Amino acid sequence: MSQSFAPVLIAGCWRESRSVGSFHADNPTLGESIPITYPVSSREEVLEALEAGAEAAEALRTTDPAAIAEFLERFAALIEANAGDLVELAHTESGLPRSPRLKDVELPRTTGQLRQAAAAARDGSWRRPIHDAAANIHSVMAPLGGPVVVMGPNNFPFAFNSASGGDFAAAIAAQNPVIAKANTGHPGTTLRMAELAHEAAQAVGLHPATLQLMYRTPREVGLELVSHPLVGATGFTGSKSAGLQLKAAADRAGKPIYLEMSSVNPVVILEGALQERGSALVDEFFGSCTMGAGQFCTNPGFVILPDSDAGRAFVEAAVSSFKAGTPGVLLGKGGRDGLVEAVAELTAAGATLLCGGAAVEGPAYRFQNTLLQVTGDAFLANPHALQTEAFGPVALLVLSRDTAQTVAILRHMEGNLTGTIYSDTGGADDAEYDVVEPPLRQKVGRLINDKMPTGVAVSPAMNHGGPFPATGHAGFTAVGLPTSIVRFTALHCYDNVRPARLPAALRG
Amino acid sequence: MSQSFAPVLIAGCWRESRSVGSFHADNPTLGESIPITYPVSSREEVLEALEAGAEAAEALRTTDPAAIAEFLERFAALIEANAGDLVELAHTESGLPRSPRLKDVELPRTTGQLRQAAAAARDGSWRRPIHDAAANIHSVMAPLGGPVVVMGPNNFPFAFNSASGGDFAAAIAAQNPVIAKANTGHPGTTLRMAELAHEAAQAVGLHPATLQLMYRTPREVGLELVSHPLVGATGFTGSKSAGLQLKAAADRAGKPIYLEMSSVNPVVILEGALQERGSALVDEFFGSCTMGAGQFCTNPGFVILPDSDAGRAFVEAAVSSFKAGTPGVLLGKGGRDGLVEAVAELTAAGATLLCGGAAVEGPAYRFQNTLLQVTGDAFLANPHALQTEAFGPVALLVLSRDTAQTVAILRHMEGNLTGTIYSDTGGADDAEYDVVEPPLRQKVGRLINDKMPTGVAVSPAMNHGGPFPATGHAGFTAVGLPTSIVRFTALHCYDNVRPARLPAALRG
Repeated sequence: MSQSFAPVLIAGCWRESRSVGSFHADNPTLGESIPITYPVSSREEVLEALEAGAEAAEALRTTDPAAIAEFLERFAALIEANAGDLVELAHTESGLPRSPRLKDVELPRTTGQLRQAAAAARDGSWRRPIHDAAANIHSVMAPLGGPVVVMGPNNFPFAFNSASGGDFAAAIAAQNPVIAKANTGHPGTTLRMAELAHEAAQAVGLHPATLQLMYRTPREVGLELVSHPLVGATGFTGSKSAGLQLKAAADRAGKPIYLEMSSVNPVVILEGALQERGSALVDEFFGSCTMGAGQFCTNPGFVILPDSDAGRAFVEAAVSSFKAGTPGVLLGKGGRDGLVEAVAELTAAGATLLCGGAAVEGPAYRFQNTLLQVTGDAFLANPHALQTEAFGPVALLVLSRDTAQTVAILRHMEGNLTGTIYSDTGGADDAEYDVVEPPLRQKVGRLINDKMPTGVAVSPAMNHGGPFPATGHAGFTAVGLPTSIVRFTALHCYDNVRPARLPAALRG
Repeated sequence: MSQSFAPVLIAGCWRESRSVGSFHADNPTLGESIPITYPVSSREEVLEALEAGAEAAEALRTTDPAAIAEFLERFAALIEANAGDLVELAHTESGLPRSPRLKDVELPRTTGQLRQAAAAARDGSWRRPIHDAAANIHSVMAPLGGPVVVMGPNNFPFAFNSASGGDFAAAIAAQNPVIAKANTGHPGTTLRMAELAHEAAQAVGLHPATLQLMYRTPREVGLELVSHPLVGATGFTGSKSAGLQLKAAADRAGKPIYLEMSSVNPVVILEGALQERGSALVDEFFGSCTMGAGQFCTNPGFVILPDSDAGRAFVEAAVSSFKAGTPGVLLGKGGRDGLVEAVAELTAAGATLLCGGAAVEGPAYRFQNTLLQVTGDAFLANPHALQTEAFGPVALLVLSRDTAQTVAILRHMEGNLTGTIYSDTGGADDAEYDVVEPPLRQKVGRLINDKMPTGVAVSPAMNHGGPFPATGHAGFTAVGLPTSIVRFTALHCYDNVRPARLPAALRG
């Protein structure tokens, strides 16, 4: 009996996949699989998508930016018109609350990003033209000449979706086609997004392969995809292990790949802040660390506290809050299993479990709110393993002997998306801040004062990036338009080229 | 008997190297080695330089940009004051003519670059600040937090020198210290440059490890250097084989590396241009391809011509010119041996030798002016091997059947620094230009009309970069200030940070 698969979108056609396997997504709230079958695309299908994507890249390169902008705006409007469906789909596949999270926060953020990308496409600010009229040399940022592969994460089914999220919007704004590889946690949401995007692209008359959609490939085909001569670049958000494999393949081929992989987001709480507002900080920390069941790239998973009375009081109060809080539903079974593993790695590395540490029984995928603790000395004895990311409502509290030890701890940190310092609002510990800030600054993309790292504003000044292994390159951001667009561009210089032959962006 | 080695500059001290070997440079004009012994630095010495470089990075991060600028300007003045010595040293080590090349072209270019870098340091344009006052989020490009390793090429002993060239200037302008690894072809020139730079840095009171100097390391130590946790980034210009090894090591560690590795710089000459000014084009081509004995990254090593009467006449005339020209002195024995090998690879891949093809007898290192030829069909049968770079006065002429074949050839090109199209000045072949330009545009960093690719203007609009394997990333340029500085920066965001704690570049 032939099985009916969800369709793929290749070269402008919704069609049955040339598949080599299939999979189902889970409903994490019910802890059971959703009865829709999604195909695993074959190498043949991936190569077909690359060929079509290369053609689309040539067409989009000279497409009027106004048409690109119109496409993005129409797509945003279609998302709004279909918000009900989308929220229901995403809730079913991700377990994230319909409201406020999906409907009132993430969906408006997604349409906002698309409209900001439209504005950037229209005003062309991402092109950064440079003219040397005397020498008749002109430079401009340009599309990559090949499709951008987008592999979105599981934790933002709209705002980082492969077919509607930040990487999609940035790639399209720079006039690159997109090959979306759905996150296998929410293939149905991605399919619906791709339908709306394709409808909008067709309405505006963009090349039919402006967006293509697949759900999954065999591992080695995925590695070939990101390193293929026809590919322009890849945007990946996900686990460090998958990211590093893709990075190695792309690097060997000299293909750009932008990755957001892992971050424990160190938070340094100085004694002055604890003295001033210790119990308020416990609430802030608890809220930030357990919000969305802790499944944010910027979750505060690593807190450095003084080993003082105030520091120990913070720990005690935090443990009470974490124990009292109801664990949220996780995005999937894999996330739950990963948390079991991460906590085991942290305790094996010398951390003491203060509360939680186990999966919650029941059909839904949940994990207990979890705190671990380690001394500064113990951390410094095993700094690599004690930076294991636990993607969920889990944090490691590090009790530091003194400022010098805090500096030593920070010098051993790997690259992170964010780093936070809480200090006395009256400036009582400014001298300590000045000592702690430099080593932290070098290890993070975004330095924060006096608030938790969750909540990434879509601002032109945002940096959602940071040193390896948080991302693959500390010079780029995945959030914040138009800056995030730069990832999907190449620098094109025109030397002595006749004026009528210059691209529109240089003639303007 | 103890042997006296040229000193290294580590952590602010000129001292004897903790060496594990030694080498001599050659005088390529005399074909004999120069009796000065240079050390091969040990792993221990490299780690010492990294530690000192990390300290310098912290100090330079908050150094007044005016002091950085003053350093660069003093250094430029010292170079001018010591021009005679420097020219003599560089001539001895490289065989390049004292005048006009070294004295009147490359030296002024080098001091010009340093002064442009000083201007960029002073005006801070490279920092690209972005303010979101309402959200209190601010971003700015910042130094990398670790030393920049510069490994310069053999062919520009001043302008791309590890201790005075474009990468050095760009890294310093962004307030990064530099660990210079001399090109082993001109260690004496590099030592003299480093002396002058160090003198200028000391006079201004910069951190003593602002510049450090080594000459050579064992291979595995070089790989460790570019991938070490303390390193900020690497700028490398040199051979593809060395570059790819360094790239693999740096990529694995997630350390930025900017490479300029190889380029055959395709030149497409359309029938209209041949009809209009064929014999003038032969002169242009001969001049560009044999200038500096052809040892330029932008040497026109790959020319696509129509297989027409005019195309064949061009070939015939070019062969006459190449045969009649006197081969220049090469930079070294390695370059001569590399040319023998490259020509053998090209002929083995199906190219026909039209003239030259062998080393010239005599003490000086020279190679005959060399032309090879291949049909479009033959090229398409073996496109990879027929793009082997021959770094010298050597070019492959490809006779293309028609425009469609030219497009097919261009689609098979690897990434290059430049691509040139010659066409009729009256526009007779504009339709053909429009077909040929798009596939060429995607494969090169700099698209040129109606002139040869040699001669890289130091202009803000220049792109001396291009798709892999010409470089490691098509978004960056190695020449052209302030744009080249971006390579040696990280994006730093400040979120809710108290105003007085923002860096000066964001407070201004």
